[in-house]
Amino acid sequence: MTTAELHLATTSAATPSPSTTMKALVYHGPGNRAWEDKPRPTIQESSDAIVRITTSTICGTDLHILKGDLPAVTDGRILGHEGIGVVEQIGTGVSEFHVGDKVIVSCVTACLKCDFCKRSMYSHCRHGGWILGYTIDGTQAEYVRIPQADGSLYHFPADGDEEAMVMLSDILPTGFECGVLNGQVKPGDSVAIVGAGPVGLAVLLTAQFYSPAAIFMIDLDDKRLAVAKTFGATTLVNSTDGKAAQHVMELTEGAGVDVAIEAVGIPATFDICQAIVAAGGRIANVGVHGKPVELHMEKLWDRNISLTTRLVDAVTTPMLLKVVRSGKLQPSKLVTHRFAMNDIMKAYDTFANAAKEGALKVVLKA
Amino acid sequence: MTTAELHLATTSAATPSPSTTMKALVYHGPGNRAWEDKPRPTIQESSDAIVRITTSTICGTDLHILKGDLPAVTDGRILGHEGIGVVEQIGTGVSEFHVGDKVIVSCVTACLKCDFCKRSMYSHCRHGGWILGYTIDGTQAEYVRIPQADGSLYHFPADGDEEAMVMLSDILPTGFECGVLNGQVKPGDSVAIVGAGPVGLAVLLTAQFYSPAAIFMIDLDDKRLAVAKTFGATTLVNSTDGKAAQHVMELTEGAGVDVAIEAVGIPATFDICQAIVAAGGRIANVGVHGKPVELHMEKLWDRNISLTTRLVDAVTTPMLLKVVRSGKLQPSKLVTHRFAMNDIMKAYDTFANAAKEGALKVVLKA
Amino acid sequence: MTTAELHLATTSAATPSPSTTMKALVYHGPGNRAWEDKPRPTIQESSDAIVRITTSTICGTDLHILKGDLPAVTDGRILGHEGIGVVEQIGTGVSEFHVGDKVIVSCVTACLKCDFCKRSMYSHCRHGGWILGYTIDGTQAEYVRIPQADGSLYHFPADGDEEAMVMLSDILPTGFECGVLNGQVKPGDSVAIVGAGPVGLAVLLTAQFYSPAAIFMIDLDDKRLAVAKTFGATTLVNSTDGKAAQHVMELTEGAGVDVAIEAVGIPATFDICQAIVAAGGRIANVGVHGKPVELHMEKLWDRNISLTTRLVDAVTTPMLLKVVRSGKLQPSKLVTHRFAMNDIMKAYDTFANAAKEGALKVVLKA
Amino acid sequence: MTTAELHLATTSAATPSPSTTMKALVYHGPGNRAWEDKPRPTIQESSDAIVRITTSTICGTDLHILKGDLPAVTDGRILGHEGIGVVEQIGTGVSEFHVGDKVIVSCVTACLKCDFCKRSMYSHCRHGGWILGYTIDGTQAEYVRIPQADGSLYHFPADGDEEAMVMLSDILPTGFECGVLNGQVKPGDSVAIVGAGPVGLAVLLTAQFYSPAAIFMIDLDDKRLAVAKTFGATTLVNSTDGKAAQHVMELTEGAGVDVAIEAVGIPATFDICQAIVAAGGRIANVGVHGKPVELHMEKLWDRNISLTTRLVDAVTTPMLLKVVRSGKLQPSKLVTHRFAMNDIMKAYDTFANAAKEGALKVVLKA
Repeated sequence: MTTAELHLATTSAATPSPSTTMKALVYHGPGNRAWEDKPRPTIQESSDAIVRITTSTICGTDLHILKGDLPAVTDGRILGHEGIGVVEQIGTGVSEFHVGDKVIVSCVTACLKCDFCKRSMYSHCRHGGWILGYTIDGTQAEYVRIPQADGSLYHFPADGDEEAMVMLSDILPTGFECGVLNGQVKPGDSVAIVGAGPVGLAVLLTAQFYSPAAIFMIDLDDKRLAVAKTFGATTLVNSTDGKAAQHVMELTEGAGVDVAIEAVGIPATFDICQAIVAAGGRIANVGVHGKPVELHMEKLWDRNISLTTRLVDAVTTPMLLKVVRSGKLQPSKLVTHRFAMNDIMKAYDTFANAAKEGALKVVLKA
Repeated sequence: MTTAELHLATTSAATPSPSTTMKALVYHGPGNRAWEDKPRPTIQESSDAIVRITTSTICGTDLHILKGDLPAVTDGRILGHEGIGVVEQIGTGVSEFHVGDKVIVSCVTACLKCDFCKRSMYSHCRHGGWILGYTIDGTQAEYVRIPQADGSLYHFPADGDEEAMVMLSDILPTGFECGVLNGQVKPGDSVAIVGAGPVGLAVLLTAQFYSPAAIFMIDLDDKRLAVAKTFGATTLVNSTDGKAAQHVMELTEGAGVDVAIEAVGIPATFDICQAIVAAGGRIANVGVHGKPVELHMEKLWDRNISLTTRLVDAVTTPMLLKVVRSGKLQPSKLVTHRFAMNDIMKAYDTFANAAKEGALKVVLKA
Repeated sequence: MTTAELHLATTSAATPSPSTTMKALVYHGPGNRAWEDKPRPTIQESSDAIVRITTSTICGTDLHILKGDLPAVTDGRILGHEGIGVVEQIGTGVSEFHVGDKVIVSCVTACLKCDFCKRSMYSHCRHGGWILGYTIDGTQAEYVRIPQADGSLYHFPADGDEEAMVMLSDILPTGFECGVLNGQVKPGDSVAIVGAGPVGLAVLLTAQFYSPAAIFMIDLDDKRLAVAKTFGATTLVNSTDGKAAQHVMELTEGAGVDVAIEAVGIPATFDICQAIVAAGGRIANVGVHGKPVELHMEKLWDRNISLTTRLVDAVTTPMLLKVVRSGKLQPSKLVTHRFAMNDIMKAYDTFANAAKEGALKVVLKA
Repeated sequence: MTTAELHLATTSAATPSPSTTMKALVYHGPGNRAWEDKPRPTIQESSDAIVRITTSTICGTDLHILKGDLPAVTDGRILGHEGIGVVEQIGTGVSEFHVGDKVIVSCVTACLKCDFCKRSMYSHCRHGGWILGYTIDGTQAEYVRIPQADGSLYHFPADGDEEAMVMLSDILPTGFECGVLNGQVKPGDSVAIVGAGPVGLAVLLTAQFYSPAAIFMIDLDDKRLAVAKTFGATTLVNSTDGKAAQHVMELTEGAGVDVAIEAVGIPATFDICQAIVAAGGRIANVGVHGKPVELHMEKLWDRNISLTTRLVDAVTTPMLLKVVRSGKLQPSKLVTHRFAMNDIMKAYDTFANAAKEGALKVVLKA
């Protein structure tokens, strides 16, 4: 068979699409992005699906890419790894989704077949992992090709709200898995979250699944802390004075916290976590780090602590979906701004000035 | 009541002891130790027991104390936190032991009543923890006072061997809890142990409770590695060339190991662990660290690893006792030298020159 | 020493008590109880404390005793295993409590020293377990002797409410440990609780620590179900028609529930649990059973379920205390009636007619 | 596309096979089986693989089918759910296996995509589960079609022995998952296995991964018990006198065992497990039950036990492969008889008279 025939063979499209181009947010090297025409994606493998995006959002990681921090992202790449949409086409190997199904796109692509996927470590999938809007084209576009569709899409619930559900693409599983599950938050625990940005707030929302007794929220920005208060934080600590650790130790009468969650990704915030974790406690790292940290093993070696790292696996999406549907979690709280997809350039400007704009999550609607 | 009356009230001694002095190994500041006369200990609290020591041993920590590394140890302190003996006297609050019982002395003193003890973190007991031969007088003596006796002694099994059982005082629970349990060794796992000293070898012996498929033993000393081979290590790596991590990565085809166990306590060995832990793996620290380490969060943040620290809790002593009694573990393998207690000064000399003497554990018999 | 001297030696009383009698609720064989004079308890062992009761309550088990269902309870026994009070006297072995401390009395007596206590199975403590108001005199009295005081009392929090805190003596740990923890309730789970009596409602309150998506409450009594609704049940099923299982299966579209919790103790309610547990689900038994049940292994053998039983260990009291103090749990919701301790005979009448009286927990105040 | 075209499209065969028939062991109603000609299987779905069988074996379940105990098995069905073979053809959706690969066939077919597979409950896969030789044709044939090949096959290790590896198809994961993992066998535990047939012996072999201190083997047949002894059982109990439970209780000084594993599937053996499980212990059911059992909740309700059931998920095959390759498990110990595949009728006769023939596993070689 020729390649063309193979594509034919592995595709069961509804009807041939008349148009072959679409609009997409394209990266053109550090500092440069454009909302421009790109070819519409087509089925490449039998496990692919083509999804028409109806809602997307921008992640802090997208800003890092734009700064040039992730050199694996090359000129011409369509960004975005979060989205809600409708299945337009599926490969012959796709069994769990059909044309017309409304879906949540996971930020993590999972083949489900490799050794890592079988261990529920989708983040390290040998045929996937985080690739959308990174090493392959992403979701900030009219259409996106989703490889390993059966492992990378979730059915959108009948009664769902797109704005809420798009938070399931990345930010909620990230906060929940890397912060809350790895931190083993338990009823009655004291928890400190360092960083009240969108991811830290996602930790805050999902930590409450386990009824901790106290949640300390630590940040430099009083506005973000005020938001954290409305989201359930019990104590706010502004760390501008450089004494956040000292404050937490005083507030806990010298004991420290059962769980310290790092949601920033720099040595200073990691240091706070080391300094406040109680004997027997857990440090759960969520932040993306660009350089080493100094780990005070001379103090920690006999403290019976654990420290965990994790790239989100997005294996808890089914669980999170159930909790959202039950009404116990309102992820749309995280949404501060809404734009039409066509105004994505403006949306990026707003999100890039999050502090000034008071922006948390910025939603894009097709 | 006067103090004397209190002692009377809280003591149910068999018969008054004629002698009031004993021999003991006493610390006299950095570099100085003596086997000299000391007053025999007496019951101070109702939870105390007085134990006549029949077998003891020397720990690497004792050498650290002698170097002056632990300033909390003051001139005049009797050293030692390991021992087998016979109960000579008990306070009125002691219910699980009687005069004449043969016992294993745990290196960790546990009141069983405080919040840490109730969470099985005896190491952080608010009335105990590691205090024997550290902040109170220890076991390298003819007699020792054991506070919180009900939580700090274990019944010596009828069919037991003192030499084997004294390994349950410290080294086996240390290797097992800090290394094997924290490292979550599972059947089929690949495990690397960095450091083939007595503690690393205790890790090696107890890791095999869980049937790992491969155990890499890493050390600078070929003689110790050869011992490790006879103890069950499947692959030996001499790290003298500074390329231990590279070798392990090659031997694992780039995957790294499921569990990396640090049993030395310096940055160089910690670095090996960071470099060889597989995605999804565990680093379990056993070594005592004197300074910070550099933690490569820029590489580890997305590797889904855990890193644990622990001061031995000695909560697994009952489990270890059962395994030793079943014959699945022969702790006396660790014993290379035997001395009469009276020759303890010589025993220390031998243990301090462990490499030259080929010494692992040095047993002292009363 | 004579026995008298021993008592002296093991007691550190504040001041000698002038009166030597007290009032107590005494069992006099099936159907007979009296509020009558009894000798005030005194310290018997060095680990004892004498507690002056300020608040108590009546348990369903007390009614069972009165019916004669528990022949181990003998004529003359003071009933009651729940209470709040003030420490009046302590034995010399008591270290965690002092005269004058306000305390919560646990229904389970724990020596903390035996093999079961060390495994956190206080219920099977070799020197305790459930003995209060069962094999030794209990808390429905002006004073009670608490053996193993350090393991059986908890400090009453400064800001606590006695009515709320007395629920920590038994009903909350029972519901939480036997039902919720054993049932492994997780975020997003569907949970069914069979029996909306006080214990079932305690399960309902504490299940919500883990954010299940759905809680089905099953009972014969619409009034109790209505209470369950206000306590957080999401679906009510009146089982009077004998079709509760069928209803739950329909409501779950044939899947059944992740967790089925039995809080009654008869074959009919156990059968409902078997019939509704989903593949991979858990049945957690809380009810006290008087006869065997038929277990449908021919249907369950390949369903990957677990079934657990448990006598409350009351090991989670510290955790529950933290959650209550944080305000996430309001145990006083369970209290429907209040009586002066002197009116305990009337209180028993009310509690014995719970359905008619709409009684859940009946609180007694000294 | 026509169905024929679809097959073409979804197949990437090496070369067209000249022959279209093969030999297979076919069920023809209760009591009737034949080694006869059947059409060679062909790819039906893109996830299928066709495997040429080189080694197979017979399971106790096959005998049950032949007795007519499993009415879902219809006349004409090819039996067998265990096997080693070589991939002859794959559908276009198969990515982890290629033509020519040597493979282990799992008894459980797993799509990996459904909710149960994502929870590692392959046994309840919505597109698979146990279907081979049950609702679709099986492995006692020259060729077999394996649906969901990527989830149902495992790569045969380079240094593997077919006879040993075919034990990974069913019996080892069954014993390990249903018995050992569900029973939570730990170092130092006492374990009782009721039933020393092949599955009970698989439990015995894999229980030793966790270093239990004592393993009681209970059976009616002294020959099987003698085998169990050579496999690592520490105590043999012949239950012919109906007093097995009493013997175990005496041998454990009244404590009972930490883990009781039922590997027969009848009320009498289940009763032994109930009678010997220690407080805090686990009953793990492995046997296939045809009728209800009486569960003594009146005795067990306060014993803090767990009881588990499980149809093998075969999710531990990768782990078991690693342990077998490491030499810590020699599954070929289970093989007592070997036949050419052509002599399968004779092999069935031998296996059906296991007691007389001293047969455990009977291996068939193509």
